[in-house]
Amino acid sequence: MPSIDVAGEFETIRRLFVPLAHPDYARGLMDDVAVLPSRSGFDLVLTKDAIVEGVHFLPNDPLDTVAQKLLRVNLSDLAAKGAEPFGYLLSCHWSERCGWPERGAFAAGLKADQKAFGVSLLGGDTVVTPGPATFTLTALGWVPKGRAVPRSGARPGDLVFVTGYIGDGWLGLQAAQEKLTLETERLIALVDHYRAPEPCLDFSIPVRDMATASVDVSDGLVADLGHIAAASRVGIVIDLEVTPRSLAGQAWFDTRVDEQAALEKLVTGGDDYEIAFTASPRDEAVLRREADRRHVPLTCIGKVTSGQGVTVRFAGQPVEIAAPGFTHG
Amino acid sequence: MPSIDVAGEFETIRRLFVPLAHPDYARGLMDDVAVLPSRSGFDLVLTKDAIVEGVHFLPNDPLDTVAQKLLRVNLSDLAAKGAEPFGYLLSCHWSERCGWPERGAFAAGLKADQKAFGVSLLGGDTVVTPGPATFTLTALGWVPKGRAVPRSGARPGDLVFVTGYIGDGWLGLQAAQEKLTLETERLIALVDHYRAPEPCLDFSIPVRDMATASVDVSDGLVADLGHIAAASRVGIVIDLEVTPRSLAGQAWFDTRVDEQAALEKLVTGGDDYEIAFTASPRDEAVLRREADRRHVPLTCIGKVTSGQGVTVRFAGQPVEIAAPGFTHG
Repeated sequence: MPSIDVAGEFETIRRLFVPLAHPDYARGLMDDVAVLPSRSGFDLVLTKDAIVEGVHFLPNDPLDTVAQKLLRVNLSDLAAKGAEPFGYLLSCHWSERCGWPERGAFAAGLKADQKAFGVSLLGGDTVVTPGPATFTLTALGWVPKGRAVPRSGARPGDLVFVTGYIGDGWLGLQAAQEKLTLETERLIALVDHYRAPEPCLDFSIPVRDMATASVDVSDGLVADLGHIAAASRVGIVIDLEVTPRSLAGQAWFDTRVDEQAALEKLVTGGDDYEIAFTASPRDEAVLRREADRRHVPLTCIGKVTSGQGVTVRFAGQPVEIAAPGFTHG
Repeated sequence: MPSIDVAGEFETIRRLFVPLAHPDYARGLMDDVAVLPSRSGFDLVLTKDAIVEGVHFLPNDPLDTVAQKLLRVNLSDLAAKGAEPFGYLLSCHWSERCGWPERGAFAAGLKADQKAFGVSLLGGDTVVTPGPATFTLTALGWVPKGRAVPRSGARPGDLVFVTGYIGDGWLGLQAAQEKLTLETERLIALVDHYRAPEPCLDFSIPVRDMATASVDVSDGLVADLGHIAAASRVGIVIDLEVTPRSLAGQAWFDTRVDEQAALEKLVTGGDDYEIAFTASPRDEAVLRREADRRHVPLTCIGKVTSGQGVTVRFAGQPVEIAAPGFTHG
């Protein structure tokens, strides 16, 4: 059952991926494997996420940003755990639209991000699929031994923080689908965020040092905080009004009549790739100082309680959230 | 763009995958990441291969063997490098045919193989795809520091060995597609091999200790030896007649009129998942003793020369091979 061979597995690897290979661990991508030396005093943190055309990205998204989104959603998982990324393995399942120009764009997107985030390609494979283009990535990072931040460490009395802004992932999808009416500049910012979100690596070290539990916001803020609540066996209470909004998010919010409904959209939409975490109130001052120093917006959105689940409040009253987040089957 | 949610991402993980999770490193599959302690004196070997319905397995293949094939083709890469596998990350892209019974069969196949091969699930993700079912796996193994066998170490004068039998992968595909006429018992053996090949982990340690270069036979024996020849900058000469054949392979071969054409099919078909390697003639006696002791068939099929590329001989004369192996785009 030979597949449609547009560009050739070996030729794709040689021309496009060998230049991206890690200088020490990837064996020039000639060996089917990566070989990674142990690093004394560190744990290796691994995460694996896939993106599928029509599910996680749009059929008309350019492939350079598809590659960047793939890499960044995985780096976001490492950032939330306090790990410093250094490499990744990649499976490309090219669809029929992926000829040389598209594959070249994909590799160019990776090249730019490798430089931006300090990572290199370790290995993987490339095949042609009769279905939608699909890409899977395994990202690797180092964290000092025993220091990877769990989901399970939140304690009653902790505060709940989130980096950056919430809702731009969902708004970006609406913008990319031409469902939003906003100034062009705002629309572009939202589409850019949807296509190539920024993983919050800049705040990874304070999270590692001070968070009691953390998660990256991918499914939706409420759903992801629910993961912390479940793993930590605590309750979490957040106030919708303090949901941090970007300039574009605020511009959209200002056009809404039903504030509560609008805020619910923002906190359930997902694809934000910010870090949501819990920390002791006694670390708040240091966290805020670190955030200022790194120019990372940091917002306290609620607190940890005894009990269970996530309680979302608006105007001080609990509100019911029908679908707290996005699920991928 | 929510996907078709047949069974639910979290429910699939909770019901089917949490029971397969590594007890120490997987964090109960609750944390998006695996955290792996360093192992002093060892290197970590990683490999990543995907399988796509209609490309690497047939739409009517049962999902328990699809899961096993996925895991085993990756373990085969580790075996060829001399690494001992212990864990894997998994991305499942379920197609519409993957309801609960199919997902359950997939997990059951993994469970059986985890026990057989001493590995556990470390992490990954699950999504629903509108295209063909696709599964990607990253396998991890340990090898003593600096001892992972390269492709690049073959030297002129080395002998070329292969474990097991060559051609059953290709014959198995023909059998699964009902294109072969053989005794039922032979057909079953071939289909079984195609659907769930045996990675040659039993011979991994002798390969680690004595091979100068090695590769697993996935693309096709000639193509894979070509990878060793290219990486080692040597030539390789093999004789078609000595290609080791299983009982089923021999039964098929006995029905062929054109022996050379039949042997060419066997050495180019791929999907064998045996180990092809080079070693010094002075290690031959020990290799044969280790093979006997482990009940692993071991055949010397040729030798390493100066020069380049793979020369295939029949009746002592070089023959031209049109398509040395399978390429996946």
